[in-house]
Amino acid sequence: MHPTVGIIGAGAMGMAMALNLQGRGYAVEVRDVLPAVEQAAREAGMVVQSTPRALAAACDIVAIVVVDAKQIDEVLFGAEGLVHAEPRADAQRATVMLCSTIAPQDSAGFAARLADHGIETIDAPISGGPARALTGQMSMMLAAPAALLACWEPLLVDLAHKRFTIGEVPGDAAKAKLVNNLLAGINLVAGAEALALAEKLGLDARKMFELICASSGASWVFEDRMARALTDDYSPPRAAAHILTKDMGLATALAASVQHATPLGDAALARFRETVARGWRELDDAAVIKTYRG
Amino acid sequence: MHPTVGIIGAGAMGMAMALNLQGRGYAVEVRDVLPAVEQAAREAGMVVQSTPRALAAACDIVAIVVVDAKQIDEVLFGAEGLVHAEPRADAQRATVMLCSTIAPQDSAGFAARLADHGIETIDAPISGGPARALTGQMSMMLAAPAALLACWEPLLVDLAHKRFTIGEVPGDAAKAKLVNNLLAGINLVAGAEALALAEKLGLDARKMFELICASSGASWVFEDRMARALTDDYSPPRAAAHILTKDMGLATALAASVQHATPLGDAALARFRETVARGWRELDDAAVIKTYRG
Repeated sequence: MHPTVGIIGAGAMGMAMALNLQGRGYAVEVRDVLPAVEQAAREAGMVVQSTPRALAAACDIVAIVVVDAKQIDEVLFGAEGLVHAEPRADAQRATVMLCSTIAPQDSAGFAARLADHGIETIDAPISGGPARALTGQMSMMLAAPAALLACWEPLLVDLAHKRFTIGEVPGDAAKAKLVNNLLAGINLVAGAEALALAEKLGLDARKMFELICASSGASWVFEDRMARALTDDYSPPRAAAHILTKDMGLATALAASVQHATPLGDAALARFRETVARGWRELDDAAVIKTYRG
Repeated sequence: MHPTVGIIGAGAMGMAMALNLQGRGYAVEVRDVLPAVEQAAREAGMVVQSTPRALAAACDIVAIVVVDAKQIDEVLFGAEGLVHAEPRADAQRATVMLCSTIAPQDSAGFAARLADHGIETIDAPISGGPARALTGQMSMMLAAPAALLACWEPLLVDLAHKRFTIGEVPGDAAKAKLVNNLLAGINLVAGAEALALAEKLGLDARKMFELICASSGASWVFEDRMARALTDDYSPPRAAAHILTKDMGLATALAASVQHATPLGDAALARFRETVARGWRELDDAAVIKTYRG
């Protein structure tokens, strides 16, 4: 018997996770603030709940895939928040999975407050994009007590083919996610800096792209994002520029909290902030190359 | 009939190229300033020449794989330089391949001066490391007139499985190489910045390494170099820190010459310069992480 899984925040990633689970035979229920998303969920045959509280009452476990900590705070502890749901008599272990990319102290704080309500927390940020989430091929970083992870192991396997157990303390997976995203963000801006330089030097940009993908400058994010920069087409975004801007801000603040200098992270973040400031926040994050093309 | 190939500068890359060609049935002759290298070449059954001039007189084509433009200037135009060799009556086309990573204006300048001596030039920087060079799996960027490249095509195929023809003008391949190395250098320092941050946050460094290699922060240079940083062992170097420091300096100067800002390149170069300044110039370039570990 599969558990009934609730998804709060059925954006690109949340919806892909929901569809993946549904395809594997799970009952999936969804809560989202956007009517268009609710409609899409209904058309996919999912139950749509009108509040996090109602969702939690109907589900065995709830994955939260909203954008930031402020939204998580609202769906957990707001007037119609998840914690106000009646405990289910037949529930295994009331559990919340925090899948958003947030600051580690927020993950840890939410876990502590949820514990006061008898709810357990899996710090479970995700990575890999909607296409991989849709087939269960995404990756997931995990920080939670081992017994709790063991309890939900079959669900975690179905959600994420690649799972990295970072530790037992909620917040540690958030740290790992931010470190990875810091690096991805730097590699992306670096790729833009290099490709735009090739253009200014009069080199064939597509040829340079292929050369770099086959050489020591290759990176996952260069190949994925600069393919898009070659065609100068950034809409609709696969990942909007303001998302990585937020992640990089969290990552550099985390680094500062342990007195770790991030000269490359700071320089990359400055380019992302410029991208947002120039009105391109909703474009694909590959649009950071526009700050170099002038 | 294979041409007789001369190699000037039989360091890690030059020797690997020489051994690769020898294994494919080419006669290979070598010139190097270091007696130990001469000895190794002799033991491998290669003819060792005592000057570039003598080497050129015995070979159909000469590949130059020394460290920098100053050394190239010496081996080409010095008192015992290559240009002073008697032209061979039976030669196809007297040709020099410039395989070092140098400034594009130097490649172009050497080509022009060689042309005055009736010698043609292939701007042919290489990439991929000695292990790939040894099996002909390295990559090569090429800029030279199409007819000249066609003439040497069989040799180029044997040397480098991956060949990127950038254009017909010597200097353009040097530009492409510097753009790639700029990006590789940034990605390397970025990887060090991220891995050292994970360490300071108390995360398991090896687990983070594996996570990043499977996630959006992945890059070729991260996987290759940070594997070494994990064991904190940088000697002997696969690529000494001062080499990429030199390349990054050339690349940022090239960018400045076309008014292209390189904030990430500048920040990464600063870390490489610090690595050299702290006495680690001969260590593997992965040692740049030591500037972050404090």
